[in-house]
Amino acid sequence: MTPKVALTIAGSDSGGGAGIQADLKTFAALGVYGTSAVTAVTAQHTAAVLRVVSLDPDTVLAQVHAVLDDLPPAAVKTGMLANPEIVKGVADLAARGRLPNLVVDPVLVSTSGHSLMDAGGVHAYRELLFPHALVVTPNLDEAALLAGTDVHELVTLEARAQVAEELRRLGPVTVVLKGGHLRDDTSADVVAGPEATLVLDSVRVETRNDHGTGCSLSAAVAAELALGVSPALAIERAKSYVHRAMSGAVRWQLGSGHGPIDHFGWGDGPAPPR
Amino acid sequence: MTPKVALTIAGSDSGGGAGIQADLKTFAALGVYGTSAVTAVTAQHTAAVLRVVSLDPDTVLAQVHAVLDDLPPAAVKTGMLANPEIVKGVADLAARGRLPNLVVDPVLVSTSGHSLMDAGGVHAYRELLFPHALVVTPNLDEAALLAGTDVHELVTLEARAQVAEELRRLGPVTVVLKGGHLRDDTSADVVAGPEATLVLDSVRVETRNDHGTGCSLSAAVAAELALGVSPALAIERAKSYVHRAMSGAVRWQLGSGHGPIDHFGWGDGPAPPR
Repeated sequence: MTPKVALTIAGSDSGGGAGIQADLKTFAALGVYGTSAVTAVTAQHTAAVLRVVSLDPDTVLAQVHAVLDDLPPAAVKTGMLANPEIVKGVADLAARGRLPNLVVDPVLVSTSGHSLMDAGGVHAYRELLFPHALVVTPNLDEAALLAGTDVHELVTLEARAQVAEELRRLGPVTVVLKGGHLRDDTSADVVAGPEATLVLDSVRVETRNDHGTGCSLSAAVAAELALGVSPALAIERAKSYVHRAMSGAVRWQLGSGHGPIDHFGWGDGPAPPR
Repeated sequence: MTPKVALTIAGSDSGGGAGIQADLKTFAALGVYGTSAVTAVTAQHTAAVLRVVSLDPDTVLAQVHAVLDDLPPAAVKTGMLANPEIVKGVADLAARGRLPNLVVDPVLVSTSGHSLMDAGGVHAYRELLFPHALVVTPNLDEAALLAGTDVHELVTLEARAQVAEELRRLGPVTVVLKGGHLRDDTSADVVAGPEATLVLDSVRVETRNDHGTGCSLSAAVAAELALGVSPALAIERAKSYVHRAMSGAVRWQLGSGHGPIDHFGWGDGPAPPR
């Protein structure tokens, strides 16, 4: 009867739609007790990121340790780790087996397009953190950066399957290569797992209210893992959850830009069965 | 169908039971879209506060402005404002009418007992922020500090009603003087409002799982105000919500100290009707 615990290590989004806020909302919606370690505080809303203040790695790790020592999580996700030192600190904990069911959303590029990680950060993700991840969830830009290829090479499903498998050889058990940012009808996610490489397709939700979908997807995978679900099923359920959350908010008018999604099933959009 | 928005200006609690995390959980549980401005990042869990890093006032206000400019809240609550400069910055916005339905939880003393505010901070609360608050929710220690009296003077209901009315003369429309920290049977809250001073009593929930009850109460008041409820009814509903959340978690085993409450009604404790 005590709820399972999940931990997110990520940035704070004042607008509440992405970052630890999206993660905590997702954990709660899926019945998991949420804890968090803040890596950076952002002043942002649905239209712009106005300010980013990174926390020093010691403060980030102090938060992680506070949670691990007292509220042991059943799953952990990482979002924006802000700088290479934080990636290294988190990877060190992962290497010591302290971060169970680790889901890594490798946030390398902000939505506004500027790089959050130098070459050292990309290297730390590839060589230090990925080997200890159960699931990684790059989008196309991130996958291209991590694989050292050009994103324009990733237009075909074959090319994307190949890069997903390449990233899987770095260590993660399952790679979810998200196709959501593509603007054509080949927007399917590629899932490279231990048994097979699959294409997970779903009908695109036509909406501007898609702020925080990447955060919410990886948080939902972590929540499902915390509940004891297998990675393959966790990914399928997480994708379905985010689809429902996007559908629920299509008519919401929150903010002038990309509005948040409907984490709690309040909205009146179509609700496909789980 | 677009949800109402509430904003919390408060500290971050890595353990997820208090601070912006408790506020966001409370907002969500009551059907209100949550946004947040982080004033300080703490590494803490159910047994101790291990580290506190305050953010500079500019970063706090940048977050507040990001929310106000794009996701106008229907209600605002303040929790730990960390230092007098942040109190002043928030009070300045309140004075300019930017913080509607303002609920001020005057966090002056940390749970571990050390003071978060010097005399300048107490003065800023009294003279600058309270005049613009719709509801303030001090506990007994905070009320004593704000009124310049000794907390041991506040043992009788009469003395507490008097100090609540004294704080009301500083400007807030309604003062909720919480009795929750008392360890006897006179644990009732005193509510001094424009029409009357009332005693709001409820059966004490016997539990160590009471982390974040103060945060959650003021957040619930703000959520109800955002939904359009009157201050008197918002306070009554908020008290009932926190009572339910405490009851739901009585058998939870989360953490070695004061565990979190059951924000989402998951628990198996008795659930009194709202």
